[in-house]
Amino acid sequence: MNIIETAAEAKSASIRLAAVKTEVKNRALAEIANVLKERSGCIVSANKEDVETAEKCNLSGPLLKRLKFDENKIGEVCAGIESLIKQDEPVGRTITAMELDKGLELYKVSCPIGVIGVIFESRPDALVQISTLCLKSGNAVLLKGGSEAKNTNEILAEIITEATDKIGIPKGWLQLLHRRQDVAEMLALDDYIDLVIPRGSNEFVRYIMDNTNIPVLGHADGICHVYVDGEADLDMAVNIVVDSKCQYVAVCNAVETMLVDEKIAKVFLPKVQIALERKGVELRGCEKTGSIINVKPATDEDWSTEYLDYVLSVKVVCGVDEAIEHINRYGSGHTDSIVTADREAAERFLVMYSGTAAHGSATVFATGWGPKWA
Amino acid sequence: MNIIETAAEAKSASIRLAAVKTEVKNRALAEIANVLKERSGCIVSANKEDVETAEKCNLSGPLLKRLKFDENKIGEVCAGIESLIKQDEPVGRTITAMELDKGLELYKVSCPIGVIGVIFESRPDALVQISTLCLKSGNAVLLKGGSEAKNTNEILAEIITEATDKIGIPKGWLQLLHRRQDVAEMLALDDYIDLVIPRGSNEFVRYIMDNTNIPVLGHADGICHVYVDGEADLDMAVNIVVDSKCQYVAVCNAVETMLVDEKIAKVFLPKVQIALERKGVELRGCEKTGSIINVKPATDEDWSTEYLDYVLSVKVVCGVDEAIEHINRYGSGHTDSIVTADREAAERFLVMYSGTAAHGSATVFATGWGPKWA
Repeated sequence: MNIIETAAEAKSASIRLAAVKTEVKNRALAEIANVLKERSGCIVSANKEDVETAEKCNLSGPLLKRLKFDENKIGEVCAGIESLIKQDEPVGRTITAMELDKGLELYKVSCPIGVIGVIFESRPDALVQISTLCLKSGNAVLLKGGSEAKNTNEILAEIITEATDKIGIPKGWLQLLHRRQDVAEMLALDDYIDLVIPRGSNEFVRYIMDNTNIPVLGHADGICHVYVDGEADLDMAVNIVVDSKCQYVAVCNAVETMLVDEKIAKVFLPKVQIALERKGVELRGCEKTGSIINVKPATDEDWSTEYLDYVLSVKVVCGVDEAIEHINRYGSGHTDSIVTADREAAERFLVMYSGTAAHGSATVFATGWGPKWA
Repeated sequence: MNIIETAAEAKSASIRLAAVKTEVKNRALAEIANVLKERSGCIVSANKEDVETAEKCNLSGPLLKRLKFDENKIGEVCAGIESLIKQDEPVGRTITAMELDKGLELYKVSCPIGVIGVIFESRPDALVQISTLCLKSGNAVLLKGGSEAKNTNEILAEIITEATDKIGIPKGWLQLLHRRQDVAEMLALDDYIDLVIPRGSNEFVRYIMDNTNIPVLGHADGICHVYVDGEADLDMAVNIVVDSKCQYVAVCNAVETMLVDEKIAKVFLPKVQIALERKGVELRGCEKTGSIINVKPATDEDWSTEYLDYVLSVKVVCGVDEAIEHINRYGSGHTDSIVTADREAAERFLVMYSGTAAHGSATVFATGWGPKWA
């Protein structure tokens, strides 16, 4: 089959899959877990081939570790499937209902997206997770995994297809793409594919976004901010900044720039510097920061840099308005937050945060008012 | 200002506009209505210039009629603004709230989109409607109207800007684009513009969709269907088909193809033919249709044609599954419906309708079960 036929088959399956009852989808999920366990020997040996080839090609240590798919990992993905089975049916829920006129009712009901194209990385567990999530939510899926995991992905797709065919899930709902060029061809098929989810480097995600008319669920950069307001609990703020920076520096939602209200800069900066330097974080500060603590100077380029490393740029600002202006200008609209005990400042931060248009999220770390926001 | 500066100014205004309180926005809306009435003389004379030029250019009758903007039309748009003021605040509503963990609450709150680029047709009332809707919903807007309405649009934009400046709405929230090439340049500004809404011909909308990375709210074709199920109330079905076809044949949601269940085709087709031919509708039928009533034969091209005229293609199908397959294959995922008293058929129709992924809507015209669906 060429890629158009593959996508057309998935589209046709997606329409019938949308009508499959919860009970049948859950039975298919259970069957996938069964067959994965039954055939774990074959999976492990296919994976060994991939790992051996990767070792020959001098794949780096962390990538090799992610590629490895052993009995333990199989157990983990099966546990994931069990928990997915227990989740509520996502399809067919009435979200809103209103009577527009006598006898004229409007319902907004959740429905599957249709056909989803997913490009993912070397972890073979991702194949199982993505395809079972698609099945539960009634979506057909085109999958393109990393070529390092070729053998593992092929046997996993074969097992999942076999298990779902047996239970009567519409044939063709899962399609494994094999060639790199399949991805480029897929991007032209907006008649058949309803959503593309790319995972990979910034450049790769940007390439996908720039080369398709299909909606893309993805983000390129992750320049994220923590703003420590003049009314923040400073010990809490130190913990939040250290955790946001250091928990895992290579993830897209790690903080890259800390903004500090000038009202508390003199007290807060020395405190947070000690805690961050203890973790090995290099600070780069604006002029005002440099007049309070001893740091390398930050340049304009720093505000636009996603370090993904033990580096944090620091800027002293004059209150929430300057903070949010900086975030809206330099941020990626991904994950940004305010630490404050001032409810009005928090509200202003949320309402002026422009990341929401890009599906970003704004977090308030609050002290000093009731447990519920609204 | 060039188009980038214009868009950047709108972006900056949009962030501050998001924080403007309901009461201020409503005051600005009231002020717009006031100034429109006060300066109606200037508006009417600017419009006369446009109409005169259009007459010289031999603009067609319907277009001339839409271009005309007199005291009556001004009264109508002002009434529209009054009703908009009374509507609930769309920004800041909590849509969902959940406690993810102790002390960790997730809220989904409605927010403005940001900057919206709207390309609209010759009706100058559209400028007032679009900009006041944007203001109420906290969005900045770039507007490009038809060149025929140049003078009218300019004075309207001037009045609205003047009125909102006076009340303290952030400057630059409304930007009128003047040149055709501004539209092409706008399409590249995905850093500043969050949504494009094009109105115009299919080809124009398709051009916009194919030439921008900004999300586009628009649809090109409108090949819409009514499926008359074997369990339909046939008199009701006749009324629905006649109304769907004839109420206004030139709109995108007029029906273009009627699908009829073979179970009732022999009874229904002669009935509906009389009613449609009385309205001057030409029928083009599949082979089975032709064996029951006297119609022109339909070709494969008919199923893919948006007539926007007094023409209806007719196909006899074997139940809801064949109907929905036809709709998913040939339809635009725009506006499609089933007429039935069989709740199961209605459910199957809704669940297998693939138009939902394209923001289409499916309608059930039901008889025979309770007044509420869910």
